[in-house]
Amino acid sequence: MKIIYSPEHSQHNTKTELSGGELVSPFECADRMEYICKALKEYDLGPLIEPRQYPRSHVEKIHSKNYLEFLDSCWEEWQAAGMKGEAIPTAWPSRSMTSPRIPEFIDGKLGYYALAGETSIAANTARSAWLSSNIALTAADTIVQGETSCFALARPPGHHASKDQYGGYCFINNAAVATQYLLDNGFAKVALMDVDFHHGNGTQAIFYDRKDVFFSSIHGDPTHEFPYYLGYAEEKGAGEGLGYNLNHPLPAGTSYSEWEAKLEESLIAFKAYGADVMVVSLGLDTFENDPISSFKIKTDEYLKMGQKLASLELPTLFIMEGGYAVEDIGYNTANVLKGFLQAT
Amino acid sequence: MKIIYSPEHSQHNTKTELSGGELVSPFECADRMEYICKALKEYDLGPLIEPRQYPRSHVEKIHSKNYLEFLDSCWEEWQAAGMKGEAIPTAWPSRSMTSPRIPEFIDGKLGYYALAGETSIAANTARSAWLSSNIALTAADTIVQGETSCFALARPPGHHASKDQYGGYCFINNAAVATQYLLDNGFAKVALMDVDFHHGNGTQAIFYDRKDVFFSSIHGDPTHEFPYYLGYAEEKGAGEGLGYNLNHPLPAGTSYSEWEAKLEESLIAFKAYGADVMVVSLGLDTFENDPISSFKIKTDEYLKMGQKLASLELPTLFIMEGGYAVEDIGYNTANVLKGFLQAT
Ligand SMILES: [Zn+2]
Ligand SMILES: [Zn+2]
Repeated sequence: MKIIYSPEHSQHNTKTELSGGELVSPFECADRMEYICKALKEYDLGPLIEPRQYPRSHVEKIHSKNYLEFLDSCWEEWQAAGMKGEAIPTAWPSRSMTSPRIPEFIDGKLGYYALAGETSIAANTARSAWLSSNIALTAADTIVQGETSCFALARPPGHHASKDQYGGYCFINNAAVATQYLLDNGFAKVALMDVDFHHGNGTQAIFYDRKDVFFSSIHGDPTHEFPYYLGYAEEKGAGEGLGYNLNHPLPAGTSYSEWEAKLEESLIAFKAYGADVMVVSLGLDTFENDPISSFKIKTDEYLKMGQKLASLELPTLFIMEGGYAVEDIGYNTANVLKGFLQAT
Repeated sequence: MKIIYSPEHSQHNTKTELSGGELVSPFECADRMEYICKALKEYDLGPLIEPRQYPRSHVEKIHSKNYLEFLDSCWEEWQAAGMKGEAIPTAWPSRSMTSPRIPEFIDGKLGYYALAGETSIAANTARSAWLSSNIALTAADTIVQGETSCFALARPPGHHASKDQYGGYCFINNAAVATQYLLDNGFAKVALMDVDFHHGNGTQAIFYDRKDVFFSSIHGDPTHEFPYYLGYAEEKGAGEGLGYNLNHPLPAGTSYSEWEAKLEESLIAFKAYGADVMVVSLGLDTFENDPISSFKIKTDEYLKMGQKLASLELPTLFIMEGGYAVEDIGYNTANVLKGFLQAT
């Protein structure tokens, strides 16, 4: 399986994450990629290939232009305003502040374009986000060229980013950008399976009223887990998209067998839908020792996850999302891919 | 002029404010009250009187019960969840996360009930907020009893708090609670003048569709200043309240004479409206040396502000809001009251 990767991701290297009322070292850190690369090599899962650069227009099909311009200029504007820390919003358009206007001052803009505040923006954050989207596009192209699977080892992750909001460590929605590329290049119906511990709120919101993408997510119940304000079972799509959004919120302590029963439901739905390609938002924070999550999947069980995903027998594009047990993330990731390859 | 005050406000004594990507010592601090008390005594403006305690039902006319329950339990829930810092939200219901559900876990609840993240919640925050509302109610009662003016020296402030959201250092909207009390006790039409540097978004939102309160605010243009997402000139009220909301956003560097021209417009509108009582949300962050604001009003000019407010010739209830130039806030506050008393 080709693995699309660039070491340049490490230029996104923020120092602060707002967590529990403190500024801590970010859980989403560059080291994660080192452990994954190491395990992929050790398992000899495939060659690491540098991404190509694609026109911005592919990303502009998913994100609004004003949002992308904000991302590009945010850090410079923040510094020019004399702020001393990394860019973290302090106010946002809430249900009691409903002007449609977009503020001009960076502190107000930041809150307008943010859906969460744990995610700092600093030097090269935007650059790494664009690079990450090029990794996803290069991997999607590999599937378009006829490969049956590919892994976009993208960082920063993407599934929390919506049309015009960042948060949850995500800026550009790589899975959504890749999905659109597949649809624009010969595929007709995409099964988008989000296995990250957290609900893929951005991806859901982007495709919520479309019937060419069936989005499904298995995740910690948002009543108790980030992103809190989306990801409930009653969210089933809207308009043309009604029936093509399937959420499986699950409680803390969920084991692999309980988890796999929900994956089975999603795969059955994908089959009935008639998907001709699958995109997997691959987060490994379902791991039993993940520091910010509460499922109980064990390292060996990720082999089964890969095997199960292979049972759909579709060309499959894996895109890296979360996973914060840094020393274990490598083998957990490699096991999903190994299991998938064993079963195909 | 009677001054309603309690030293117990100092129990709300948070250590952290999120500002410029750092956790700094809060601008809204207990010391502010010491400087005000000192200047009020020096100017011999009136006796300091302890607040009485009023039933919660007065506050429940302005804020939702679930919000008030959240305020009461927030700090205990936050600590029980093992959080190490003060309570600061990290995610919120954004325009791309629109579930109507209220999360159960405190981190998600916090974001649901917050409109900004600079305002930490800690031990006794709720207690001080309730005390502050009792100061406002005691002061309103003084006006009901026939006094022509009274000063509610309330802390924490209130004008940013909406029906069910806190932020901008505000938890219970003291001005709104007092206004409702006046309406419930013989007054028919309240002129609510917000002279704080920041738009009184909470107060506006609470009375936006009502005709028994005319809300007017002079403030830093929200395009560049907190609260960013409300306070524009085009916000004129809705339904029965249409025409009874008057915003004057002004640019950085605004002088007293420019400011007073807008106050004049508001007072003319109040007269035409037929107000029988005035509530003044008295923030002193319009001061030239305020550390977080950008107007240029000088200490002596607050005398003129007080005189001008007196020209409406209505019973007038002053309620303390913001002002962060701690060493100057005393004389600036005292000058408004002194000017008012000189002119009546
Ligand atoms: Zn995750
Ligand atoms: Zn203010």
